[in-house]
Amino acid sequence: MSLSERASTTYLKNQEFLMKCFALCLKNPYCKKINKDGMINMGTAVNQLSEDILQEKLNQPGMFEHKPDLQHYCGLNGTLEFTKTLANFFTSRLSHGVEIHPEKIRVVNGVSSALEALAFCICDPGDIILIALPTYARFIADMGERSNAKLVGIELTAEDNFDLKPERFEKELLKLQEQGEKVRGIILCNPSNPIGKVYNKETVDDFLDLCIKYNIHLIADEIYALSIYDNSKFLSVLNYTENQTKGLVHFLWGFSKDFGIAGFRVGVIHTHSKDMLQALDGLGIYVSVSTHIQQVCNKMLLDTDWLDKVYFPNNIKRLRNSFEIVKEVLGDLDIRIVKASAGLFCWLDFSKYLEKEDTESEIKLFKRLFDEGKVYIVPGSEFGCTTPGWFRIIISVSEDILRVGLTRIKQILTA
Amino acid sequence: MSLSERASTTYLKNQEFLMKCFALCLKNPYCKKINKDGMINMGTAVNQLSEDILQEKLNQPGMFEHKPDLQHYCGLNGTLEFTKTLANFFTSRLSHGVEIHPEKIRVVNGVSSALEALAFCICDPGDIILIALPTYARFIADMGERSNAKLVGIELTAEDNFDLKPERFEKELLKLQEQGEKVRGIILCNPSNPIGKVYNKETVDDFLDLCIKYNIHLIADEIYALSIYDNSKFLSVLNYTENQTKGLVHFLWGFSKDFGIAGFRVGVIHTHSKDMLQALDGLGIYVSVSTHIQQVCNKMLLDTDWLDKVYFPNNIKRLRNSFEIVKEVLGDLDIRIVKASAGLFCWLDFSKYLEKEDTESEIKLFKRLFDEGKVYIVPGSEFGCTTPGWFRIIISVSEDILRVGLTRIKQILTA
Repeated sequence: MSLSERASTTYLKNQEFLMKCFALCLKNPYCKKINKDGMINMGTAVNQLSEDILQEKLNQPGMFEHKPDLQHYCGLNGTLEFTKTLANFFTSRLSHGVEIHPEKIRVVNGVSSALEALAFCICDPGDIILIALPTYARFIADMGERSNAKLVGIELTAEDNFDLKPERFEKELLKLQEQGEKVRGIILCNPSNPIGKVYNKETVDDFLDLCIKYNIHLIADEIYALSIYDNSKFLSVLNYTENQTKGLVHFLWGFSKDFGIAGFRVGVIHTHSKDMLQALDGLGIYVSVSTHIQQVCNKMLLDTDWLDKVYFPNNIKRLRNSFEIVKEVLGDLDIRIVKASAGLFCWLDFSKYLEKEDTESEIKLFKRLFDEGKVYIVPGSEFGCTTPGWFRIIISVSEDILRVGLTRIKQILTA
Repeated sequence: MSLSERASTTYLKNQEFLMKCFALCLKNPYCKKINKDGMINMGTAVNQLSEDILQEKLNQPGMFEHKPDLQHYCGLNGTLEFTKTLANFFTSRLSHGVEIHPEKIRVVNGVSSALEALAFCICDPGDIILIALPTYARFIADMGERSNAKLVGIELTAEDNFDLKPERFEKELLKLQEQGEKVRGIILCNPSNPIGKVYNKETVDDFLDLCIKYNIHLIADEIYALSIYDNSKFLSVLNYTENQTKGLVHFLWGFSKDFGIAGFRVGVIHTHSKDMLQALDGLGIYVSVSTHIQQVCNKMLLDTDWLDKVYFPNNIKRLRNSFEIVKEVLGDLDIRIVKASAGLFCWLDFSKYLEKEDTESEIKLFKRLFDEGKVYIVPGSEFGCTTPGWFRIIISVSEDILRVGLTRIKQILTA
């Protein structure tokens, strides 16, 4: 028998781009020792830069411990211990003293699950969430596939240096409302993926004001908040008090990017909204994380000495170094590299190397890079960028892979 | 701003019964040393009987290990290593030699998530799944809350000794079809929760035939398959070949019951349906399990010596012993105890102790047990049993708690 209409449409007709390319890379991965002709994946946002530091830390005795009270149903939405530690971690690193309370934190199995859950709780099927384009493509998948929220993009432009303009969101919102659509929220991805920019206090404040003005939700994805490697001033929405947010602001973070441990499947939601917290508790069993892994994460975050003196300084230094390598290797090409301040990627304009200035040519270049160059980088059109020729390169692969990958890109571009 | 209509209706208007009672018990839990008047939870299906054995095993050096390849996105739907081990585990313990293939296995964060995912893939909103009543109440929640499948029950009766009659399912299916409803599948929970019965080969075969006849799905929840403690003959649907199942049969199992490690959040789906596997891969990121926990589970299952000589024999013996204790302590009351063959519970008829033979009186008794007796057991009406007076008692709590809990029940009944 066939599957449901919704499952067939969503999952059988085609495979989501990022997932598909990731799977293809996995089948034939590059290895400098045994598979020099394998695929280099600079499309999937993983952070390999601090593998050594994490390996040492996570293999310390006592990191994993079994106790009978971890065995049973407990902390489905976050153990008491871990949410307390997270609250302290956020208070000291993101909200700069504005006290974060553990009872407003929920732990889920990754930020994809968090986005799916928020879409269910904020939108009825077909309701709209606004998002800046180019955007990390899985926002659309995560909120749309099963939860049926519809994402509508507002395109940022290269001429504007990809700056966020809240007034353009307002204009779009009013237009959609006039058409009878229900706009229920805005996603603010800060630091931004794929641009690598950090949006300043003024911009974030403007988005909060906008959401309050129209009584819609602000979904703040700050999963790269601790991967800022220049002097950009970043304002986390965690700085807003309960009173300021009116229950409209929902903060997202996880272990997959700033720590590069996607394998843990640990995401975090913070919100002042009591209704949202209650709804998240109700659906907690579908997004639950192993209590044992929560315990491991807890121990990592409790070791502030390690965080401050070993992990973060090194990770940040290595990210900065990776971005410098991109400029070094590709700097003499006729391209534009947007100055990245944060994140695991950078955003580049290869339009001068397209056959024609259209999306077909961009995809053609992507395919040449993928099939001939054996290097996977994501073309801008997959992120909703309509100006052809832009690509996102993941820079947080290990240095030797980065250099091989960039060299392959250069060879294809200049061939 | 308010949440979506669907989130408000599902999660804000009331809290699901099992979750609510569980949360209340957690606030004031019984402890023989420091809280003798606390709540005894014999409502939530946890297995505490083998805590000692698991504690020893899971704290062995090397059970948890971090390697860089576990750090990144890998095995979102089950690592290669773990699915291979699961395939061997099932082949030797459940399908008795019918070879189970790892590529037909998906690992998810608990069987609740599995049920939610299957409901999405099998049903469009409002489509119907048939289920025997009384039933584990969360089938209805897991498949209905976010995935909007509608569960319709077929009531088993005490007179029939709660036997499953496939012809009653067929009759209901035809009736619903006549009413224009779309019936898309049947849930077969075997061994059954809450009855504790094992359904034999003939019955399971009949259900397969029925599903094939009407081209509907068979969702086989066998989460208690390795907790059978008498000589009942059990037929897992894993015994059916690809050819026999016509892609209609989906097997569910997990670590929460047979190993009692709900804290791991590890569930397993096996299916021969290529479409279902593809759909599960598509939604894999929402139901993913930590790679590290998959590694721990893998190591547990690879130690067949420990499974065969330590864990299973002891766990089974202790389950059997618990059921004997129930008969010993409550045996002189005027009640009926259905002979349980498997699982963590037994099913009892307290109707002689109701004020009147109606559901209100059953709930009144539940409340007296909960509020005065400080013991939580689930009333049959919560499982869809319309004959008043039935209750499910979880027997897999530690022996001292079991004895205190049963004594409290006895005191309330005979007060």
